[in-house]
Amino acid sequence: MKLESRRGALLLDTLKSAGLRLRSDCGGRGTCGKCRIVVKDSSRVSVVEETEKQRLSTFELRSGQRLACCTHLIHDATLSIPEESLATKRKFLIEGTEKPVIVDPAIRKFYVTMQKPSLSDARSDILRLSDSLKDAYGLETTSVDYQLQKRLPEILRKGEWKLTVTMWNNEIISVEPGDTTEEAYGIAVDIGTSKILAYLSNLATGKLVDTGSVENPQAIHGEDVISRISFASEGGEESLKEMQKLVVDGVNAIIQQVCSKSRHAPEQIYEMTVVGNTVMHHLFLGIPTKYLGISPYVPAVSGPIDLKARELSIDMNPAANIHVLPVIAGFVGADALADVISTEIYKSSKLSLIIDIGTNTEIILGDKHEMIACSCASGPAFEGAHIKCGMKAVAGALEKLWIEPENYKVKYVTVGGVKPIGICGSGIVDAVANLSRLGLIDNSGVFVERSPTPRLRTTKGRKEFVLVFRKEGATRDIGITQKDIEQIQLAKAAIYAACYVLMKRKGVKPENIDNVFVAGAFGNYMNLDNAKLIGLFPDVPSRSIRFVGNAAGAGARMALISKKHRRTADLVSQKIRYIELASDSEFQTEFASAMFLPNKRADRFAPFRNAFES
Amino acid sequence: MKLESRRGALLLDTLKSAGLRLRSDCGGRGTCGKCRIVVKDSSRVSVVEETEKQRLSTFELRSGQRLACCTHLIHDATLSIPEESLATKRKFLIEGTEKPVIVDPAIRKFYVTMQKPSLSDARSDILRLSDSLKDAYGLETTSVDYQLQKRLPEILRKGEWKLTVTMWNNEIISVEPGDTTEEAYGIAVDIGTSKILAYLSNLATGKLVDTGSVENPQAIHGEDVISRISFASEGGEESLKEMQKLVVDGVNAIIQQVCSKSRHAPEQIYEMTVVGNTVMHHLFLGIPTKYLGISPYVPAVSGPIDLKARELSIDMNPAANIHVLPVIAGFVGADALADVISTEIYKSSKLSLIIDIGTNTEIILGDKHEMIACSCASGPAFEGAHIKCGMKAVAGALEKLWIEPENYKVKYVTVGGVKPIGICGSGIVDAVANLSRLGLIDNSGVFVERSPTPRLRTTKGRKEFVLVFRKEGATRDIGITQKDIEQIQLAKAAIYAACYVLMKRKGVKPENIDNVFVAGAFGNYMNLDNAKLIGLFPDVPSRSIRFVGNAAGAGARMALISKKHRRTADLVSQKIRYIELASDSEFQTEFASAMFLPNKRADRFAPFRNAFES
Repeated sequence: MKLESRRGALLLDTLKSAGLRLRSDCGGRGTCGKCRIVVKDSSRVSVVEETEKQRLSTFELRSGQRLACCTHLIHDATLSIPEESLATKRKFLIEGTEKPVIVDPAIRKFYVTMQKPSLSDARSDILRLSDSLKDAYGLETTSVDYQLQKRLPEILRKGEWKLTVTMWNNEIISVEPGDTTEEAYGIAVDIGTSKILAYLSNLATGKLVDTGSVENPQAIHGEDVISRISFASEGGEESLKEMQKLVVDGVNAIIQQVCSKSRHAPEQIYEMTVVGNTVMHHLFLGIPTKYLGISPYVPAVSGPIDLKARELSIDMNPAANIHVLPVIAGFVGADALADVISTEIYKSSKLSLIIDIGTNTEIILGDKHEMIACSCASGPAFEGAHIKCGMKAVAGALEKLWIEPENYKVKYVTVGGVKPIGICGSGIVDAVANLSRLGLIDNSGVFVERSPTPRLRTTKGRKEFVLVFRKEGATRDIGITQKDIEQIQLAKAAIYAACYVLMKRKGVKPENIDNVFVAGAFGNYMNLDNAKLIGLFPDVPSRSIRFVGNAAGAGARMALISKKHRRTADLVSQKIRYIELASDSEFQTEFASAMFLPNKRADRFAPFRNAFES
Repeated sequence: MKLESRRGALLLDTLKSAGLRLRSDCGGRGTCGKCRIVVKDSSRVSVVEETEKQRLSTFELRSGQRLACCTHLIHDATLSIPEESLATKRKFLIEGTEKPVIVDPAIRKFYVTMQKPSLSDARSDILRLSDSLKDAYGLETTSVDYQLQKRLPEILRKGEWKLTVTMWNNEIISVEPGDTTEEAYGIAVDIGTSKILAYLSNLATGKLVDTGSVENPQAIHGEDVISRISFASEGGEESLKEMQKLVVDGVNAIIQQVCSKSRHAPEQIYEMTVVGNTVMHHLFLGIPTKYLGISPYVPAVSGPIDLKARELSIDMNPAANIHVLPVIAGFVGADALADVISTEIYKSSKLSLIIDIGTNTEIILGDKHEMIACSCASGPAFEGAHIKCGMKAVAGALEKLWIEPENYKVKYVTVGGVKPIGICGSGIVDAVANLSRLGLIDNSGVFVERSPTPRLRTTKGRKEFVLVFRKEGATRDIGITQKDIEQIQLAKAAIYAACYVLMKRKGVKPENIDNVFVAGAFGNYMNLDNAKLIGLFPDVPSRSIRFVGNAAGAGARMALISKKHRRTADLVSQKIRYIELASDSEFQTEFASAMFLPNKRADRFAPFRNAFES
């Protein structure tokens, strides 16, 4: 790349006017030392200043390193710019993880000015544009979006040959009159079976601009993936198209939502990354899910997919790229892969376990050498569904509770601190653990015959423990039924047994596991001791367990703002080995023996504490 | 690539069963020596046979070369196969050129059989497919057509995991049940302003299967490119879309035509290459032509373009690639580039001149070091249009004629040998040359005052030379008018002056030009001496001039069956420098002085001969 500049010009300014912004945290005062460049021949530039000597070692100075904010051009000079000096490579923390991500998106915007065509220079519009990108930024253009080609002649002339070019890798996908380089957005989308979440991000800085969420509109055709598969498969091509349209409508609604909140134009969203379980993944792409519902549960596609937004009728820049992350198996989707990416277990030498709890719970065990994954049906109990008084972790949900041993009085906290109206996942775990601890249920989870308290009552022949009576301030009597306890037993036993199978396959014991990452939408304050008491997790020290919230969304966002993480996701997806529990003889045995309450092994480990004192 | 084989198997057979067909002209009898392979360790295979010693030198044998038809496998062995031994690399002669083309299309078909999925092998359908391609043929799959992904699960199961995969480069674009590897077709299309021509080709052998042609349906909006530009630009987006639809309809009609003639399914046409002048190029792609009609005549796009057939609504395999060759300038299109490719002037050290005569005549002068090109308006006279009795070179056209000096009797030949009904390009050249030679027209092309023969008659004040009277067997009096002669003068003067400008820019004289390639649809028997006499070409020896017919179509076909030629076209397009005649001061002067008949310089050179004796 060749730049022209006047003699004596400050290199920092010269580079900036060519679009090469260097880091300059101190504002060009020579104190931060971030704008390092390497000058090939020191005699072509001004002499080393005192401030530089304070920031650069003798060795660095001798090898040609200089600060661009202290160096002036004397003659034609050859420079090189270390990647870490570029302002565009900002490190950024993804919400919910502590890992810094270097901002390096596939989308970049460049401002160019061009010579008008003349009889002596009648290059085609596209050639003129790509030549000017090459001249100004040293960029190679490999292609130009076809639909853009049709509009290009008018855009160039409307912009009077001063334009901002948006490139996806080396493809020109958008050209806008004037300088719009500051307006570059991307969106990471996590398509859940029940909820779609989105993260609008600034692609220049990596920062989160806004988040949005909508219910997955496919819910009208069933709550879980199995009913979605049935609907999509049984009605032929039309039903599949309808399912695709529903999820696309949902994604469009969320784009509308975040754009109107943050006052950005959907046309200035130039890329989307998408994660989701394999069924959501296929339905979003309009790919048949039939064989996901039949043994051996084979996905149609698994690798990463790049598509134009217009191919999926997504309302953003029509030439925007939609990058759909790979899936691992029929029931271990791109969301589980995104968990692996955001927790970074793939590059750790320590052994980690990820448990992403949902209607299906995905479990991944491994380290940088090997990762194995499986999936088990755990039902929606932890999300508050199929539970008599269950609800999501929203305002009014009992999210934390403690039953006094003396008088069975219940202390509780609700989400938002308002009047209790139901119970969410973390509250249910607390309730079952307390009932077990106080001997109100036996080992097999059955309520005791003789009730020591009016809270344990029998209505129409069915036993129920009332956590909060209506007269105690609830909107209704909020209780836990025998059936609720069963749901929790089935769920926790499945998860526990699945973890057991993975550990056995890898030949490790709970004590060998260094980190457990628990992801999911069960509420924010899951009591670890209670979770371990009921046997939801393997028996590892509490300090090893971290709740990581929507780790899948974090992974999608990392893939959005960093090409490196996107490549990593692809490579990692090929490394994770899928274990089919259905073909594992021990899963059923272990599942049955994990139904007990309290979980025997967990009991040995965890001293029981009042949740309010911990 | 790993192959399994039984011990003692003949290498030729082992490789064949894995899809690696070697050349074997002698049928495996060891006599042709074409199936050479290189064995890394000679102790792993059978000993050298006598027949091999006759075909391979001691040096070759010592370096591990063997004939696959004489070598048997004893142990696991590592082989390499020289490219020239592969049967797929057939050399093929493109019609109208003598240049052999190595068949190496972007499209290849492979037959694969796969293991059914099971609980212990639940790879995704796509991964299973790409893995089997890798195992059987060592192929890397980089992507799979998105629309195909939607249908893939059903196709794989319908084909019971035995399928033929069509790859465009490393993208899977089609999967068909069973073995259809023999059915691989491509089509090269030359979109002319008046006619669209197509060449259906077998991509496995490179052979021409069939040709077809239709009138360009855009003709309803004007005969020449200028009226097409006007229509497409003035009516806004709708007119542009209509123009695109018309040419797409034309291309679809021609596909229908060649497919029904040759009984092939359009779905088995997997690729198309397209050439045409820049206006046709833009209209086919739906790209605005407005600025092609306004100085400085700038194309919107110029580089090569690859698109899916479905993006242009072309009725062939929907995932088929359409490769549109690059254009050079507003009035030097992809057809001119294809001329350069098929005549191969770009790799010759000899200086060549291409003249592609049409309503616009494109001229390219150069050699492997440098090529310059220009375009001039030459009118449709040589195609028989704007000439009183003019017609295309079809049955009944006077294509060759001679006027007896003694009695002005006209000897003639018609296309198809039938009753004359008009006159085509080559006939007009003969007529004007003869009139000039006999002094019936003066230097400025004007008929003499005193007619020496009743053939030179005056009707309604207008002079005309009657070539064939109705009573002599024509369907009407066929004559040449003063206006006809003017048309020819304008056309030949433009071409001559354009050649002059190019030669001057390059600093060469006619005698420096080694080859002149004349392309165009003016008839098949243009009399060289007459053409030179009227000054249609620069004054080069007749032996240097070759008529190459539709060289553009030949170039399109070369780009269809050879990736190498496609790449070459791209590189060559960037090397050709465009010369704008409008900005050349000498063009007008030279044009005016080239109006004379006979052309003075040509007259000096070419001894005049009776066309029927030559």
